[in-house]
Amino acid sequence: MPLWTIYHPPGAFSDVDKAELAEKITDVYGAVMPRFYVGVVFQPLEPRNFYVGGKPADRFVRIVMEHIARSFPSLEASRRFIDRINAVLAPYIADRGYDWELHVDETPFDYWSINGHYPPRPDTDDEKRWRAENRPSARTHA
Amino acid sequence: MPLWTIYHPPGAFSDVDKAELAEKITDVYGAVMPRFYVGVVFQPLEPRNFYVGGKPADRFVRIVMEHIARSFPSLEASRRFIDRINAVLAPYIADRGYDWELHVDETPFDYWSINGHYPPRPDTDDEKRWRAENRPSARTHA
Amino acid sequence: MPLWTIYHPPGAFSDVDKAELAEKITDVYGAVMPRFYVGVVFQPLEPRNFYVGGKPADRFVRIVMEHIARSFPSLEASRRFIDRINAVLAPYIADRGYDWELHVDETPFDYWSINGHYPPRPDTDDEKRWRAENRPSARTHA
Repeated sequence: MPLWTIYHPPGAFSDVDKAELAEKITDVYGAVMPRFYVGVVFQPLEPRNFYVGGKPADRFVRIVMEHIARSFPSLEASRRFIDRINAVLAPYIADRGYDWELHVDETPFDYWSINGHYPPRPDTDDEKRWRAENRPSARTHA
Repeated sequence: MPLWTIYHPPGAFSDVDKAELAEKITDVYGAVMPRFYVGVVFQPLEPRNFYVGGKPADRFVRIVMEHIARSFPSLEASRRFIDRINAVLAPYIADRGYDWELHVDETPFDYWSINGHYPPRPDTDDEKRWRAENRPSARTHA
Repeated sequence: MPLWTIYHPPGAFSDVDKAELAEKITDVYGAVMPRFYVGVVFQPLEPRNFYVGGKPADRFVRIVMEHIARSFPSLEASRRFIDRINAVLAPYIADRGYDWELHVDETPFDYWSINGHYPPRPDTDDEKRWRAENRPSARTHA
């Protein structure tokens, strides 16, 4: 469900950084949903292909987060979540002197499929099994 | 309208596979709308730039489908459509042992333009002409 | 806020073209919001990775515009804006014989963060300061 796209200057993150970041982002979501829901795409961009404010961006990280499995129940919940994400990102971005921007879009739960299955609703027995087994399987409840 | 982005391991699809997949995806939509509405982008991703569940993804295909020209009229219609898409994808993905995930987002019809034209509403005379000619042209109806 | 992704054939735009386009796009948004809100990503795509209507696309430019900071207040406002964008693009796309398609999606204002800040509402004193200084800073109003 969450699909992250991280646009970044080619030299911003090492392969180790990327693996760590993906793991830590997955930990945040994994506290409430199956870990295999979390996709993270890194898109290195040369400054000639990436502009912020009309200027080539060689110190900027832009993150797009598509949420499907969960909707924020309130503004406060979204603030807590985004603050936590900013804290996870800090050692890799802010602390290295990069600027960054992120936004979340929410897309329809019903128009989503994994390995041909339609994912179970949050906190159902089926989702609990998907989470425990960390893989999709046929639903046993409607 | 539909814009598909297919994130995949670099070796997952040959050029022939990609051309076939694009053709078959276009056939599905082309049954009800102009074929030239259908855009398909393949994005090969090295495992160090693509993580699922916090692990490098070398056997995973992630598909994002942006729908503009049509909204699903019902849950049942969306199920039929997504099941059909999963069947079209199977020989290229499931049958080769890849895991895959897809989701659809719907974006506003009115904020869409092709070659400077605003596309006609579904099933109007203008859309029928666009479809028959497989190209955009000035609208003759409001 | 606006994040543009411009999918284009590798040879469609020179580096000078890209810098000019990013500047002109930023000028349009900069008339009403901070210039640093504007992100533009160029994604060159080989024809074997980019299909329109089921055919490899070597003369097609596809633009995705994600809007966060402002929502269109009316259909008329969206038409004026998109017409203006099409006019800005024309010398680089239509006048060179390329086909093109664009669409706008609007995503939630509240789920957006820049350098750890939550951007101020349109036309507030805080936004005016962000615009005048062309950088984010701590909000002084709720």
